[in-house]
This record gives sequence, structure tokens and C-alpha cells, in this order.
Amino acid sequence: MVTTPPNMATPAVPTDAPAAPPVSDGVKAQRQDFYGRLAQHDMAPLWESLHALVLKQPASPAVPYLWRYQDVVRDLLMEAGHLITAREAERRVLILENPGMKGSSAITRSLYAGLQLVMPGDVAPSHRHAQNALRFIVEGAKAYTAVNGERTLMNPGDLVLTPSWHWHDHGNDTDQPMVWLDGLDIPIVAFFDASFAEAGNAEMQTEIRPAGDSDLRFGNNLAPVDWMPASQSSPIFNYPYGRTRETLAAMAASDAPDGCHGHKLRYVNPATGGHVTPTMAAFMQLLPAGFATAPYRATDGAVFSVVEGEGESVIGGQRFRWKPRDVFAVPSWTEVTHHAESEAVLFSFSDRSAQEKLGLWRERRPAA
Amino acid sequence: MVTTPPNMATPAVPTDAPAAPPVSDGVKAQRQDFYGRLAQHDMAPLWESLHALVLKQPASPAVPYLWRYQDVVRDLLMEAGHLITAREAERRVLILENPGMKGSSAITRSLYAGLQLVMPGDVAPSHRHAQNALRFIVEGAKAYTAVNGERTLMNPGDLVLTPSWHWHDHGNDTDQPMVWLDGLDIPIVAFFDASFAEAGNAEMQTEIRPAGDSDLRFGNNLAPVDWMPASQSSPIFNYPYGRTRETLAAMAASDAPDGCHGHKLRYVNPATGGHVTPTMAAFMQLLPAGFATAPYRATDGAVFSVVEGEGESVIGGQRFRWKPRDVFAVPSWTEVTHHAESEAVLFSFSDRSAQEKLGLWRERRPAA
Amino acid sequence: MVTTPPNMATPAVPTDAPAAPPVSDGVKAQRQDFYGRLAQHDMAPLWESLHALVLKQPASPAVPYLWRYQDVVRDLLMEAGHLITAREAERRVLILENPGMKGSSAITRSLYAGLQLVMPGDVAPSHRHAQNALRFIVEGAKAYTAVNGERTLMNPGDLVLTPSWHWHDHGNDTDQPMVWLDGLDIPIVAFFDASFAEAGNAEMQTEIRPAGDSDLRFGNNLAPVDWMPASQSSPIFNYPYGRTRETLAAMAASDAPDGCHGHKLRYVNPATGGHVTPTMAAFMQLLPAGFATAPYRATDGAVFSVVEGEGESVIGGQRFRWKPRDVFAVPSWTEVTHHAESEAVLFSFSDRSAQEKLGLWRERRPAA
Amino acid sequence: MVTTPPNMATPAVPTDAPAAPPVSDGVKAQRQDFYGRLAQHDMAPLWESLHALVLKQPASPAVPYLWRYQDVVRDLLMEAGHLITAREAERRVLILENPGMKGSSAITRSLYAGLQLVMPGDVAPSHRHAQNALRFIVEGAKAYTAVNGERTLMNPGDLVLTPSWHWHDHGNDTDQPMVWLDGLDIPIVAFFDASFAEAGNAEMQTEIRPAGDSDLRFGNNLAPVDWMPASQSSPIFNYPYGRTRETLAAMAASDAPDGCHGHKLRYVNPATGGHVTPTMAAFMQLLPAGFATAPYRATDGAVFSVVEGEGESVIGGQRFRWKPRDVFAVPSWTEVTHHAESEAVLFSFSDRSAQEKLGLWRERRPAA
Repeated sequence: MVTTPPNMATPAVPTDAPAAPPVSDGVKAQRQDFYGRLAQHDMAPLWESLHALVLKQPASPAVPYLWRYQDVVRDLLMEAGHLITAREAERRVLILENPGMKGSSAITRSLYAGLQLVMPGDVAPSHRHAQNALRFIVEGAKAYTAVNGERTLMNPGDLVLTPSWHWHDHGNDTDQPMVWLDGLDIPIVAFFDASFAEAGNAEMQTEIRPAGDSDLRFGNNLAPVDWMPASQSSPIFNYPYGRTRETLAAMAASDAPDGCHGHKLRYVNPATGGHVTPTMAAFMQLLPAGFATAPYRATDGAVFSVVEGEGESVIGGQRFRWKPRDVFAVPSWTEVTHHAESEAVLFSFSDRSAQEKLGLWRERRPAA
Repeated sequence: MVTTPPNMATPAVPTDAPAAPPVSDGVKAQRQDFYGRLAQHDMAPLWESLHALVLKQPASPAVPYLWRYQDVVRDLLMEAGHLITAREAERRVLILENPGMKGSSAITRSLYAGLQLVMPGDVAPSHRHAQNALRFIVEGAKAYTAVNGERTLMNPGDLVLTPSWHWHDHGNDTDQPMVWLDGLDIPIVAFFDASFAEAGNAEMQTEIRPAGDSDLRFGNNLAPVDWMPASQSSPIFNYPYGRTRETLAAMAASDAPDGCHGHKLRYVNPATGGHVTPTMAAFMQLLPAGFATAPYRATDGAVFSVVEGEGESVIGGQRFRWKPRDVFAVPSWTEVTHHAESEAVLFSFSDRSAQEKLGLWRERRPAA
Repeated sequence: MVTTPPNMATPAVPTDAPAAPPVSDGVKAQRQDFYGRLAQHDMAPLWESLHALVLKQPASPAVPYLWRYQDVVRDLLMEAGHLITAREAERRVLILENPGMKGSSAITRSLYAGLQLVMPGDVAPSHRHAQNALRFIVEGAKAYTAVNGERTLMNPGDLVLTPSWHWHDHGNDTDQPMVWLDGLDIPIVAFFDASFAEAGNAEMQTEIRPAGDSDLRFGNNLAPVDWMPASQSSPIFNYPYGRTRETLAAMAASDAPDGCHGHKLRYVNPATGGHVTPTMAAFMQLLPAGFATAPYRATDGAVFSVVEGEGESVIGGQRFRWKPRDVFAVPSWTEVTHHAESEAVLFSFSDRSAQEKLGLWRERRPAA
Repeated sequence: MVTTPPNMATPAVPTDAPAAPPVSDGVKAQRQDFYGRLAQHDMAPLWESLHALVLKQPASPAVPYLWRYQDVVRDLLMEAGHLITAREAERRVLILENPGMKGSSAITRSLYAGLQLVMPGDVAPSHRHAQNALRFIVEGAKAYTAVNGERTLMNPGDLVLTPSWHWHDHGNDTDQPMVWLDGLDIPIVAFFDASFAEAGNAEMQTEIRPAGDSDLRFGNNLAPVDWMPASQSSPIFNYPYGRTRETLAAMAASDAPDGCHGHKLRYVNPATGGHVTPTMAAFMQLLPAGFATAPYRATDGAVFSVVEGEGESVIGGQRFRWKPRDVFAVPSWTEVTHHAESEAVLFSFSDRSAQEKLGLWRERRPAA
């Protein structure tokens, strides 16, 4: 059943409403004339659009879709690597655009995703913006992201954050290309007309703290004694895969898998206990080999990146086979089931953080 | 200056970036060919759209606009009163649609507004939806709104709430038409693909509590001893104008007016101290006779309803004269000044509540 | 049943602990010698006192007690009025000291209470302290309390707050004596070694705002738009009895009385939705004529002041008859029942606010 | 300066209060007679005790004190190990009692501390209580604490929590004695008359989760997706010294030491960002070799355990030399300076968590 607040029940008197009388052609004509005059004053009749504006349940324009990394996305990324420099591009990213929302640059209704390539020697120059960004590392090792004067080295399966209005740049001092999935709240910030951005006055920030300093300060369940958070985002820049994976293993060792999620974790902002950013939430789940999940729906639109294992998901009735590094989108309120052929690990991010803050988030599980 | 978090400062090394080399026609052609192949895989190059997606500052598609009540809106409302019944319309409302966003049914980027007419004897049947709604009473007296089995009587200047997923219906047992401004978060709920709605199984809810009961329980700075809020919205259904006006008078009697706001109040959810709904904030301000405000910008898009007095506002360089019951829109980050010719009282609501929860809200006042 | 967190259940292996062997006289002597040497190093054996330090359930040193206003307390107050001036006394207050805690100046384990008399023309000079204080008006009308430069006029049944570190003084410009019940967290502040106090540099504060200004600003479910609370205490200085009484009447008109409480309200800090001070909570309850409550226990120690009606309460097995203006104490975890002979209204305050913040508060109601 | 809320300032009219007139012997006699009659009714004159009840600044009955581990405390612990079994003792602990508070079993005004010995083969049987407990490991390795059916292995420098109303037992399967510092809020729970305790129905809890499971689930900045905290205490049972020490090293590598604290960390409850328990806060600080701190005072009473290094502290004017494993007490508002002869690491815990929740905590640093 839909999860709903306790204040829903209402008593009611048996309805005695007569059916609305048929509307005569004359009245119809009068109304059309009236609607025309309303339009001249930038007004419109709600009763002609009420049920399109207030839907009985979500009907997202976004559609389920999967981007295959091997043979498709990776080849195109590498081609981009030869067609444009990171410096010229500012960010060398291929946007993953939902086929149901052409021209939107969105992967779900409220989120943006892209795959970013940083080649050896590349520098993606310093900038900052109101948008929150997360990076989930897909390929390569030891390229860096610098945030407010501090570097973090990135490895596959790491979740790296560059929160709202934090200076950030990227670079690759290794001899291998690096690829990550970018997740941003670009559509949310655009929707609220709240975008601000600045270019840095230099390509690279000066390092003012050693690499990994913030992760040590805030990632060990400690904080400097009088530190107060300056934003709603996590002070941790890098959630390394090693620690995430050991936690999944611990859950798998002692819990029965959840029927809809398997073993699923939420990334936590240790300054609040909440989600990692005020708009985007991030998750990692383990599906045991052979495990098939029960049908599940939620109002958050989610983007998945396959970390380990192979399997398939049925999303809104469409079947998608997946392998490591594939990315797929699950729109709001679209029924999804996953089946893992081998033990699988799936990263995902969604707008659940924003929806919970706005009192909008709901989920539906099979009736017990 | 723009208000920004303290973590903005960043040191920087002097830039040594060579200007991007000119791109040859051959490379341009290669890129166009590449973009075509990307499109076939539902991908696109970020570098061609980055600066359109991440704006340096907000540039709302919404425009400043004023709807004149007298002679225009009221006449059209009364005409609607004859063309359709509340029962047939479900809600007899004229949408106020921003001229910059034709077809959107939105008055600002993220909010909906309309003027609702309830004629003597009318019933607007019971329904509920995920959208939060507020009603600001413009004309008439003593028609009712029922929320979860409890009625509240409405008078000019009252702010009435029908929060998310609360059953509500409206009716008018008086001999005068009643008009109010509806403010809803319809675009927000649509944007997050989180709309749910149900029609009641009866036109009118059975009254399960006396009229005004919740206002007495929660509006007197008291609460039933073990009560816990079931939602993020205020448990008060009606914020009566009499109390709001006496508070404005008290501020005006002892404070100097704020340079940008005059004497401005925020409506409070007494269960949290926060805004009245998780998405929409509401405000009431008094401008002394002759007072002119300094230029102000904020990222929330606001809708104003004139309660008392006459004057004019300059919004994004356009001058709008206003009188009681007029409604005007101030889009995000649009500079606004108000000038009150007589003592004026302005009600307003905006998406500031949502923006604060998402860490997006900013304002800009003149440098001191 | 005792309310307890969900993490209480624990599986257990059947105990196989042999009974502790009898301790020989030799060992007893060795231990006594050892304890003596421990004492020389300011140490002691926990095992000799563990069960006295960690009780199976609360056993307060405070005892149930009632102070009769008519014929006893009032006469002594008036005598004090002739024996000492408010100026000389700084505060002309008779402490209500729990008979179980002689010399403690406490009415319950963690709270102080006294009855304060302000005669016509009296001034109780300005001071401030870390202690939070509440005043519940018992007799007289229209004397004032000034808080941070603002006066509020006091009437019977009003709850007046002078929060931590707020300047306050009292005076009586009327021709009648005024009496109120003072409730302070003196024992709490003393227990945490956190007391600070200052005398004002003048007897009376200059009025910097009109009387009642804060109550209008914060008591109408509104707040100045950019106001932020500077403390954990309510910004309202006076919760007038008229509004409290009308709320009780509304509850009594539409609810069945709670079996243990009748119709009970909690005073709310509108800036947070929490209790009026971080240490002390305040309540008002109505008992219908003839209503008898079921046995109830809670860990907060409470002080009651009778506002209306007559009846009796059985507290820890002792029967106390009460009439208006009587004060009685209910220690922690002491079973209490009330019986109202006529419709009765009881004010009370307790340390429930502190106990909830510290995770200590529990209650026990009869099993359903 | 003392940190104080912004609402302290107050204007004042020049005082015109005449000095209180001298009190005649007759009046003095009348008053003594009056006080006697008050006492018969369990009342007392506030004006005779006001300045003793509301102090101008804290004056703790607790005194500065140091317990030397080597040669003194350890020898007595080992003697206790031969005089009584853990089973008979239930907990084989030597209470560290503040010399200024004989008979109180308290080390500061509001906290209890003791040193617990668990010998090879010992079992300290399962029980639970309302009191929160923390354990700081001083000597030995790999003995266990079990909390709600889960074990954690303990090593020197680890902070182990057994929160309020969690079942816990201890045991030592190694061949070495283990000693830790127990910190409990026994005086706080006693002061609020809120103690509850139960003995388990078995000596040892059945293990229902593998050792360290909670630390993996909650200590890696992750949480099970739909987990909600059941208490105000941290879900982490063990904060290992290795992680704490690496964080101190990171701070020392990139920050200048704080003048009063050196490099000081707060242990964090990742479910809230707050302190580890609602009553007790815990800290770890590093003092560089040769570093001397500036005079500092705070209202929380603190207990220190030396982890690394040697040095001395001047507490309330008394000099105490310290070495690893020594324990010392710093009472509320007592000026303290530390001087580290070699690089030193100091663990401490205090009632700052409770004081912050109750709005009582203040500190004083040297004027800049």
C-alpha cells in the first residue's frame, strides 16, 4: 500500500450529488468565447485542466532506459577524448539524456547525469556553482578532484562529492584515462531559478590542505571540537568503496535480504545523520547471486550504476540486462524488479533527499 | 552582496592557461558528425550546453505582471459564476498564468495561483491531493473551508491552509459571493513526479469537530500534551487577519521599518517554528504611508496580494500601480522596490520554504 | 507499562551461574582492610554500593505535600509584606521546601518553587541569572514583570516567563497586593555547577518596547521575517489565561477526557514547537466535574497550582484535598490520581523538558 | 570573555535606590520568630538564602585531583582481582571519588568514574540500566563487551559505549587482565530521579550478530536504508583508537594548534551529528611536544585519561604531573592549563552534552 500520513482518514456523508447536467451547445460556445477573453488577460479556467495539473498518481515523462558502457558508451567517450581537450570543454562530459525528455539534458525529471572523461595530463579547470554534484567512479584510478583547496584521489566505486558553492577542479596525473558518472541537481536548481556560478581565477586551486584531510577529519566519526557545518552537504568529499563494500558484506553475513532491496545502504552526512546533499541521496545495495526482488515503486527518480555482477531489471515492464559500468534510469513511480545472476552490487542516486525535505516522498511495496 | 556560505573563499595560483586554440573547420565537422552519433545513443556533449545549464545567475522565464482586480478580474470571476457551477467545475477558479510561461498554468516558475469564486449555496466537493494549498481571502465573509472533518470560517485577510493529503471542501452558506487567492505548489509536485489525488466519497465531509477547533488547540501557543505532528505543515488551518494586523501595528509602533521590507512578518508553523508548509512560505508586510523600499532581490519567486493601501512597485524595471485586491508576481532574482502612497499592507507567498530546505535560497540587499 | 525504546529485547542463554560462594570471615576482614586503604587514595569498591547507585526504579527523597493557600500561606505572605520590603529582600518570596529534603530549598528533586508577594508600590530590582524562571499568577492583577526592557502586565492564571540570562524586574503600580508562584530550575543549575548572576545597574529597566510587544510579535503564530531565536526559551513572555482557558474549553467540548490527564495542554515555544524552557515544561489541565483519573506515574517531578474547582488527589497513597491557589508536589515515579468534585483546572510545571532532552523521561499508565 | 547570548544588553535608568535602612534588633527578633513559624509549614524566606542559591559564578564542591595509575591504582586493582570475582562483584570496579565530595561516588559534580578490571576468564554478567556508560580502554587487549547481543573487542585507546537501557556484559577470554575507565552519568540519573535497572536472565547474552557488526553498519558513514535511530545515543559501540589517532595526526599535520586545546576532537554520533550520548560528551586531543595551553574555563566538569606522553596540568592553581593511564578531574569553571613535555594525547569526557541541551554550557578563553 501507499505509505501515507495518519491524518488521511475522513468520515463522509453518503453523496447526494446529482450528476452534472449535460452542457448545451450554446453554453459550450459561451464558454469558449469566455476562455478567449480570459486568455487576453493572462487567465485560464482551472476546470478545463484541473485533472491534468493534479494527477491521481505520478506519470513521469521520463522513461526507463539503460546506457551500455562496453562497446557503446566507452568508445564514444574515448572518441570525445580525441575531439576536444578538457581545458577547451571545461568539463569533457557526455550527457545521458532521457529518451522521454529530448532536449532536457535530464536523465530523470529532476536530475542530470553524465559520464566524464579525464585523460592523462588533463585539467578540468576550477569553478563553483549552486548545483550539488556527486561523482561515482567507473574506470581508472588515482586521478584527483580538488574541493576548496583539498585534493582527494579517486578509485572505482568511490563516491566523491563537490557540494553546492564549493570550488572544485579535476585532474589526472596518471597514465590511464579516468571515467566517472556525474550526478547533479541541475534541473532542480533550474526549476527553482536559483543558479549561480563562477569561474575560478586559476585553472587549479592551490592546495591548502593535504589530500584526504577532510575525509580523516570527518569520516572517522569525529569532528574538530568546535566545528559547525557551513552547509547542508556532507563535509566528507570521498566515500571510498573499500569501506562501503565491507559494510555490505557485514549486512549480507548477518541479515536476510530485504524483499525489495536486498542489502541496501544509504550514504550518510555525519554532520546531520541525513542524506549527503539536501537534494540528492545516494545508495549502494548488494543482491545475492540468484536473488530476485519483489516489485517496488517510489516517487524518487533514480539513476543506477552497476559496480559488480550481472543480471537484469524489469522497469515499467521493460527488461534490461546489465553488466558492470552500465548505467540505467528508473523514473518516479515506475515498478522495478531486479534479478542478480551473480552476486551484484548496484550504486544509485536519486532526488529522495529533496522529496523527503518537501514532504513528497512515498514508496509502495507489495502488500505483506 | 549575495549572501553566501563561509566556505567560498579559495586561494588560487595565477592562471597560466593558454587561450583555447581556434578550432579548424575540419574539427568542427568531425564534432558535428560525432554529436549526431551521440544523439543516436541518447547522449549529448555537455560542453555545447554547459553555460546554458549552469547559469551565472538566475534568469527566470517568468516575468513581472499584475492582475487588476477591480474592473477586470472581478468581472470575469462573476461571469464565470454564471457560466459554470462549483459542482461541475469541482473548483471554480481562474488560473493566473504568467505571461512569460504560456501554457504552464504557473504564476512563478515553481508556484500556481488562481482566484476562486464560491457563490452563495455553492459546494466545492471534498478531495485531497499531495499538493499543499493556501487560500488568502480577498472578498466576502463567512464562507467555509472544511479540512479533515473540521470547518473554519473565512474573512478578508485571513490565511487558510489545506495541507498536503488533507481532505478539504469549500462552501458558502451566506448570501454574498466569496473570492480568495489560491496558492498551490502544483508545479513543484509535478516537477518531482510526486502527485497523488483522490476524490472524496461524498461532496461534504461530516463535521467531526466544531468549527475552529484546531485553531484553538494549536493557535494559542499550546498543544495537547502528547500530540505529535503528522506532517510538516502547520496544524493551524486559519491565521485570522485581526491577529496578523495587530502584530503589524505593534511592529510599526516600536521599530524603524526595514529598508527593503518595511515591517514584514513570516507566518509560523507552531509545531516547528518553521514555514507554514514545506514548500510554500507566507508573509505579511506593512509599508508606512510614503515609505519607499530599497532595491531587493531574492531567489524565491513571490506572489503578492494587496490588502490595504495604494502605491506602486517597480519590478525588473517595470512600474505597476496597485490597489487593494490586486495580485502581482515578482519572479526569482528580479529587483523590486515598493512605494506606498498611503499606509499599505501586502500579503505574499513564495517558494522560499522549499528553497531554504534545499539550500538554494539567497537574497541581495544594497551594500550597507 | 513502562514506555521503553524498541532496542530492549535480548535473547539469553539459560543462566548457569553458580550462586556466589559464602564469604569467610577472613575474606571479609581482608576486604575491610582493603577498603580502608582504597579510601586513603580516594577510591571505593563499587560492588558495595552498586545497587544503591543504580536503582531498579526511582525512589525520590522528595515526598508528596500540599501547601494550603487560604488561612496558612496567604497569612504568612502578608506578614512577610510587613516584615521586609521588596527592595531589601531583592525578592520577597517564601520558599516552598519539600519536607523530605530539609535544607535543600527544593520542592522536587530538581526544581525550586516559592510564592512571591509584590505589594502596591513595591519594586523588585533588576537582575539576571542563568536560571530559567516561570511565574504563575495566583492573586491580584496588573502588576508588571519587565524582561529585557519590555513590560508585561500579569493577571491570575497567566504564565509569565523570565528565561535564562534575561534581565528582569517586577513592580506593582496597583493598590492591591499581587502573589504568584515562582518556578525555577535552581537545583538543576546548581547540580551542573553552571550558575551565573548579575545585578542590574539600576532598579528598573528603561522600557525600550511597549508593554506586551513580544507577545504580539511571537504569540500570534507569526514572527519578524528574518528573526532567529537567540536562546532555547520561548520568545513569549506571557501566556494569558484567557487564551489557555478557551483552548481547554474547546478540548472539553469535543474530546473524551484522557483517562490519566483529563484534558491536558502543554505550553509551547512557538520558535521550536518544544517546551517553554529547556529545563522546565508547563501544563494546564481541565478535569470535568466528578471526573476521577486512573493511576499514573512519570519520572518528572511536578508542582501543581489549583486554578479552579475543588477536589482531592491521592499521591503515593496520601490523600490531599485542594481548593483554588493551593500548591502541591508530586515527586518522580509517585503514583497519582485526581478526583474533581467540581470542574477543576490545574496548572503544573515539571522537569519533563530536561528529562526528554536527556533521554530520561518515562511514564506508566494502567495496562489497557 | 564569557560566551553569552546576544540578548544580554539592557539599557538602564540611573539607580535612585536608597541604601537599605539598618535593621533594628526588634525587627531582627520579629523576623527570627517569623522564620520559625515558616519552618513549621515547610516554608523559608528566600531573602536569607538567595545569594547562596543563585551564585554569581560556579563554585563547584568538586576539587582538582589526579589518580596515579602506576604504583598506586594498578596495584590496588590487581589486589581487588584477588579479593573478589567479577561474578560476585557484578562489576569489579574501583570508584574514583572526588576528595571534595566524600560519600558521593562522584568524580565531578554530575559524573561518575571508576576503573574496571576484568581478569582472564572473568564474566561481568548481563544487565541494563537507564544510565549511559562509556568505557575508555587503559590496559590489556581483546577482552569483549557485548551490547544487545553483539560483541566488540576492546583495545587500548578505544572508546566503547553501552548506551542507556542497552543490555551489556563483559568478559575476558584472553590470558591478560584488562582495565578500562568507566564513565557513567549515575549522578545525573539520580538527580532526576529517573533510574531503572534490570538484571539479565543469563550471565551472557546470546550473540545475535557477529562481533563488530554495528561498527561496520554505522561507523563507515553509511546506514541501512530505512534505519531510524531508537535512542539519542550513538549506534556505534566502539570508536577504535587507530582511527582517532590518524585523525589527530592529520590535524596536527595541517593546522596550527588551538591556543587552549591544541588539536582537539569531539566524538560524533553519526545518526545526529551530536555528542555520543545525550548526557556525556567525549573528546580526544593532541598536544605537540613542548606545547603549553592558555588558561581555559568551561562549565562542564571533565575527566581526563592520559593516553600518550608526559606533562603537567595546572588546575585551579594546583600542579599535577601526569603520565600514560593517569586519570585527573577538572571541575566546572576551574581554570586549567596543560603543558606537554613530549607529544601527548589526552582523552576526556564531560557533561557538556547535557549542559548544551539544557542551554547551560559556557566557556571562557583569554581575551584575544
